[in-house]
Amino acid sequence: MSDRLNPQRLRGFRDFLPESMALRKYVIRTFEEIFERYGFLPLETPSLEYAETFEGKSSTEAETLMYKFVDAGGRRVGLRYDLTVPLARVVGMHPDLPMPFKRYHIAPVWRAERPQKGRYREFWQCDVDIVGSDEPAADAEILAIISDCLSAVGFKEYRVLINHRKILSAMARVAGASPEQAVHVYRAIDRLSKVGADGVRQELIQLGLSPDSSDRLIALINIEGDADTVLSHLERLLEDQPEGIQAINELRSILNLLSNYNVNMNSYLIQPSLARGLDYYTGAVFETVVDEPKVGSVTGGGRYDELVGIFAGKKIPTVGTSLGLERIIDVLEELGLMTPPRVSADVFVTVFDTSCIASSIQIAANLRRKGIKTELYLGKPGSLRKQLTYASRLGIPWVIIAGPDELANNEVTLRDMQSGEQKRLPLHELPEHIKSLWS
Amino acid sequence: MSDRLNPQRLRGFRDFLPESMALRKYVIRTFEEIFERYGFLPLETPSLEYAETFEGKSSTEAETLMYKFVDAGGRRVGLRYDLTVPLARVVGMHPDLPMPFKRYHIAPVWRAERPQKGRYREFWQCDVDIVGSDEPAADAEILAIISDCLSAVGFKEYRVLINHRKILSAMARVAGASPEQAVHVYRAIDRLSKVGADGVRQELIQLGLSPDSSDRLIALINIEGDADTVLSHLERLLEDQPEGIQAINELRSILNLLSNYNVNMNSYLIQPSLARGLDYYTGAVFETVVDEPKVGSVTGGGRYDELVGIFAGKKIPTVGTSLGLERIIDVLEELGLMTPPRVSADVFVTVFDTSCIASSIQIAANLRRKGIKTELYLGKPGSLRKQLTYASRLGIPWVIIAGPDELANNEVTLRDMQSGEQKRLPLHELPEHIKSLWS
Repeated sequence: MSDRLNPQRLRGFRDFLPESMALRKYVIRTFEEIFERYGFLPLETPSLEYAETFEGKSSTEAETLMYKFVDAGGRRVGLRYDLTVPLARVVGMHPDLPMPFKRYHIAPVWRAERPQKGRYREFWQCDVDIVGSDEPAADAEILAIISDCLSAVGFKEYRVLINHRKILSAMARVAGASPEQAVHVYRAIDRLSKVGADGVRQELIQLGLSPDSSDRLIALINIEGDADTVLSHLERLLEDQPEGIQAINELRSILNLLSNYNVNMNSYLIQPSLARGLDYYTGAVFETVVDEPKVGSVTGGGRYDELVGIFAGKKIPTVGTSLGLERIIDVLEELGLMTPPRVSADVFVTVFDTSCIASSIQIAANLRRKGIKTELYLGKPGSLRKQLTYASRLGIPWVIIAGPDELANNEVTLRDMQSGEQKRLPLHELPEHIKSLWS
Repeated sequence: MSDRLNPQRLRGFRDFLPESMALRKYVIRTFEEIFERYGFLPLETPSLEYAETFEGKSSTEAETLMYKFVDAGGRRVGLRYDLTVPLARVVGMHPDLPMPFKRYHIAPVWRAERPQKGRYREFWQCDVDIVGSDEPAADAEILAIISDCLSAVGFKEYRVLINHRKILSAMARVAGASPEQAVHVYRAIDRLSKVGADGVRQELIQLGLSPDSSDRLIALINIEGDADTVLSHLERLLEDQPEGIQAINELRSILNLLSNYNVNMNSYLIQPSLARGLDYYTGAVFETVVDEPKVGSVTGGGRYDELVGIFAGKKIPTVGTSLGLERIIDVLEELGLMTPPRVSADVFVTVFDTSCIASSIQIAANLRRKGIKTELYLGKPGSLRKQLTYASRLGIPWVIIAGPDELANNEVTLRDMQSGEQKRLPLHELPEHIKSLWS
């Protein structure tokens, strides 16, 4: 015992002590409930997969940021980089799944990123995806669930920004970018909110676009206003781009369907510069931003019709979104949007001395059987003051004292920890009395 | 899309499709509820730790079975081997935690074991531990929670086997084993149920014990009967071993305290051969076995007063147990001990055609707002038969049909999928009617 080992945790990884767990569990359960209310089914996949399962799928970033290693059996393995690629693998392995397949998955993923505020190497994603439907109704359902989830945990100010990959490609064509340049153009214009119009312009010119073309593109991505206004404006500017016009009409259908859900349509905006980092999107893309605090996007997703089918060998259209648990919790905490639920027990049962411990156990066992969260003191018996300090540090609101006096009369003393008030109660009235304190 | 990638999963790792998830989630939530009812608080730690955090702690097995690798920053890291060592690290990093600290942790751990039936490389542990108490009341509380958890999920036949490390060492001394031989002797006698008395005898003789000593030891570990009988018998045989007598009295105290909980004392038996594989136990040890199906132990734990303090640099007595989620689920499934909760939505809303989709969305959104789990059809509209087949494959019990006929009268058709019966209902009565079907 003399050799103390220095306890240390890896950078970018976190412990969640009980108080933060209360909020995490609350948010996760709220999301699960909403996902299930929409008829999404839970799916879980391994933390570790063949590295090649992830390679060449989601993005070039994934290649460098994945935790990869060779296991004892000589296999190249990797920690789950996201929850989307495993979904694709599962669909590929189960050709008989009823389609559309609506699944949710709430679990950690790992990325060897540079740790910084709000960015961790182990973080949780809450994913919902609709596999096997290319209907705009599926896109609308995903957009509706985003707002349901955020509202349910207390978000008030947020904007769901929407764009379409085919609007992006039409814009790139209009600006004279070659198909090879297109991906780089998307990346450049996606940085509009970070580097401003001038910054994007510079990047476009570096990519080889003419100053004229760059200006046309900047004009396109700078269109502002409500969804209708922006879409009509885009329609005029892209009138000779049939794919672009089709994408605009698709977004109109999606928004039109969305308006039948119980959501606030003012939260949904068309943002022509939105590209989303990942290369696999093929249709609508969307992300949710809040202005305060500045945490980046709290959800991201869209339609990707090519990825899921890679393992099945046929096209399987899919749309979905990921809600970022840690960022959502960061926002809730920073804006004080919710009081975290109390994590402690409802009642603390003291142990007067060794002779009374059997009675204390019986009292605790009885309260628990009635569904009351009860902590029994398990340290050395005696010193009521020490036990009260302990209960108070744990934030337990009610304390039961059952000494020889009380027990001789089949009574207990119930102490309100906030006011310090105490009263005697017959033992048999205790559970009902405690329950009444909450109602 | 022509290059189909072969979807494959690593051996010893599993996907959980929605139907198995329903049972897993039910068991996890039941355990969480019971842990919280006992006043245990949730704690979560990273999946990845410095490899040295685990090394030299739990067992020699851990060294070889841990998934270890060097990360991109040159750190030697390892996937979490158990939930106990991370608890010790957290306690070492937070000297101010109120003690006793009662925490629970339900999460996966990873071990590069040979995969076989009931043994996986990624599996979930449900751990409860009481840190900072050397009172027998803490041991009793852990023993009570085991039986509460197993009963709550439907277990009927199980035995919680109990022993004490100091009874084991007293027995080893009585049999003439040297302190160096002791650990090997424990391992040998722990295999009684696997290799039988003759097998253990052979192993003891190979370890260097005399045939006479081996026979005495076999006689000791073979004592059978209820807890009282076995303890009294042991007391006579170990009368000249003060440490052994003290351990026997400790077990008596624990069982005596335990009898004040709402548990069936007949499930708790003293098993003198029980050693538990891990080397870190110092006091009472226990595990739960079921005879059918033969899955090995479904819980394991005990008192370990030296491990947690390693990171704090002082002794921190701790007792706890781990419930093995997968084995518990294996037993529930094999014995048919519970009907897994239905995973599907309660109601399925069909989409008659594109002109009716807005109404279908409104119906679904309204039901969801009332808390009813509702799946909206998101495939290509039309073909009612196809949609009914889909709803039936998902196991959804009620289907709503809202075609132009129904909608013109502000009505819907509600179909009972089991009987095939259909009836018309006014739209505004729908949510209450559906709720009434469950009550």
